[in-house]
Amino acid sequence: MSTLSKETLILSILIQHLGEIVSGEEMAQRVGVSRVALHKRIDALKRQGVPIKSIPRKGYTLMEIPDLLIPPLFLTLLKSREMGRNYHFLEQTDSTNRVARELARQGAPEGTLTVAESQTRGRGRQGRSWFSPKGENLYFSLIIRPSISILEVPQITFLASVALTHVIRERLGLEALIKWPNDIYIRGKKVAGILVEMESQDAIPRFLVVGVGLNVNTPPGGFPPEISTRATSLMIEGGKGLLRAQILAWFMESLESWYQDLKKGHKEELLTYWRRYNYTLGRLVQLEDGREGWAVGITPQGSLLVRTLGGTLLSIGAGDVEVVE
Amino acid sequence: MSTLSKETLILSILIQHLGEIVSGEEMAQRVGVSRVALHKRIDALKRQGVPIKSIPRKGYTLMEIPDLLIPPLFLTLLKSREMGRNYHFLEQTDSTNRVARELARQGAPEGTLTVAESQTRGRGRQGRSWFSPKGENLYFSLIIRPSISILEVPQITFLASVALTHVIRERLGLEALIKWPNDIYIRGKKVAGILVEMESQDAIPRFLVVGVGLNVNTPPGGFPPEISTRATSLMIEGGKGLLRAQILAWFMESLESWYQDLKKGHKEELLTYWRRYNYTLGRLVQLEDGREGWAVGITPQGSLLVRTLGGTLLSIGAGDVEVVE
Repeated sequence: MSTLSKETLILSILIQHLGEIVSGEEMAQRVGVSRVALHKRIDALKRQGVPIKSIPRKGYTLMEIPDLLIPPLFLTLLKSREMGRNYHFLEQTDSTNRVARELARQGAPEGTLTVAESQTRGRGRQGRSWFSPKGENLYFSLIIRPSISILEVPQITFLASVALTHVIRERLGLEALIKWPNDIYIRGKKVAGILVEMESQDAIPRFLVVGVGLNVNTPPGGFPPEISTRATSLMIEGGKGLLRAQILAWFMESLESWYQDLKKGHKEELLTYWRRYNYTLGRLVQLEDGREGWAVGITPQGSLLVRTLGGTLLSIGAGDVEVVE
Repeated sequence: MSTLSKETLILSILIQHLGEIVSGEEMAQRVGVSRVALHKRIDALKRQGVPIKSIPRKGYTLMEIPDLLIPPLFLTLLKSREMGRNYHFLEQTDSTNRVARELARQGAPEGTLTVAESQTRGRGRQGRSWFSPKGENLYFSLIIRPSISILEVPQITFLASVALTHVIRERLGLEALIKWPNDIYIRGKKVAGILVEMESQDAIPRFLVVGVGLNVNTPPGGFPPEISTRATSLMIEGGKGLLRAQILAWFMESLESWYQDLKKGHKEELLTYWRRYNYTLGRLVQLEDGREGWAVGITPQGSLLVRTLGGTLLSIGAGDVEVVE
């Protein structure tokens, strides 16, 4: 879906001229439709929640970009070449990862992005549920089809974590860090979780689904009591509401850029950033079996190296580690 | 399904007394059914193709074990504790791996075995078709759910290859060897292919499906011309027909035994056998990109080490290598 729809073109013109009035004649010409057809498209956008104002005898105007995830808005903001271009938007679903897996099994191309306004069965790692209310946050799943061995798949987890952390740090100026293996924390509280699923044949992935839950506009006091001390949102940390479609578009661009680098073999830079953004390394951690130790390093394969208090060096390939201090 | 069905009990008694006459009264008592019910079960077995003879006023007899894959026969022969116990037998299917994946997604336990008399869309690695006629050979898929990292999944491929090679060598006395990554060869011709599929979440497999196509009773001259110079069967190599259910049962037992060892951490023995049974190591090979080199080793992670003729050492994680000589 590389050709933009008429609605996407209309919205992109209105966003280019945000707060200005664009004449119906000019817009119809730029979009390549009749005035009547233009009016119908504008109405369709309004029905999707875009607050376009029709000003009689002058034209149309958009005063602010609404916080919606509808395709014409997201695709207007998206600057990537491939990631996110095939965009599946759902008002509600059980789990975007499940939808993405189904799409991938049916042959959906790399870069296919499934986004839902709300999830009824959002899942974090190890089957834990993920707080997924409507309208506040981002829940999405991206299909990628890398030509790698399954032994290199942990790099894709690094990639997603680094790309998301990079967006939060560079675009929003918030001190996001990566908790091994793939949660994003700000000031000690979880703001995002990443869940990478794979289907492989022999040692080759058929596809990966990178699922992300990112707390964007949950207001202070907006989390359920049982997670409120451990969870945060970009709004809570940054003090203002954000356009989810913009953050999602930035993430697609960031991920695409890191992915291109990885495909060229620039693995070391990814690991360097992963270490730089790391929350776990250097800390005292507790393993799932109760043992404690210092997180001292990470292997190129993606395992966490932990030196136990007894002096043994462990390579942790999967599973949780809790940061003790 | 650890309790055996009445039909399985009847068949196991008849096989214990192969060639002898077992009285109806004795059999009804041992199975725990009435004489009438026994007769019905015997009829059901006959309808499934088991050549049981009823001898008036004396009892029942089975002169030879038929080459069938029906549950009562397979489960009679099976000596494993878990592998193969949950047995799904299909006269025909598109692909046993596909059926097994579906069963696994629905929660089928470890050891669930799907077997088909014929496949309409049997697939080998990299999407190549697999010659799957009815009645001659074995096509089956086993679900396993190991508690490992995806980085250790290649070990499961080794496990399946070693277990199958072991059965062919130790039980049948044929010189089977493993061609990297997971084909089985006898005297330079392919007798079996193994296809391991996985679905994982983060670095942890949700399940693996070990799919096997094993040529058992294809007679000399029985392969299509296009593969006849490269394919062989156990019958061609050993000079006699074999009971497929027995071979399948032996494989389940062998695989279970190696799997138990692996779970106890005895990885080194598996690799030792994998190297011992290896067809590729030490040979001149050609990679998919056309480069040639000597297969000089294997990493604990399952990659093949190839020293190119130019002297570079390559670690091949996935894909085919052709043995040049």
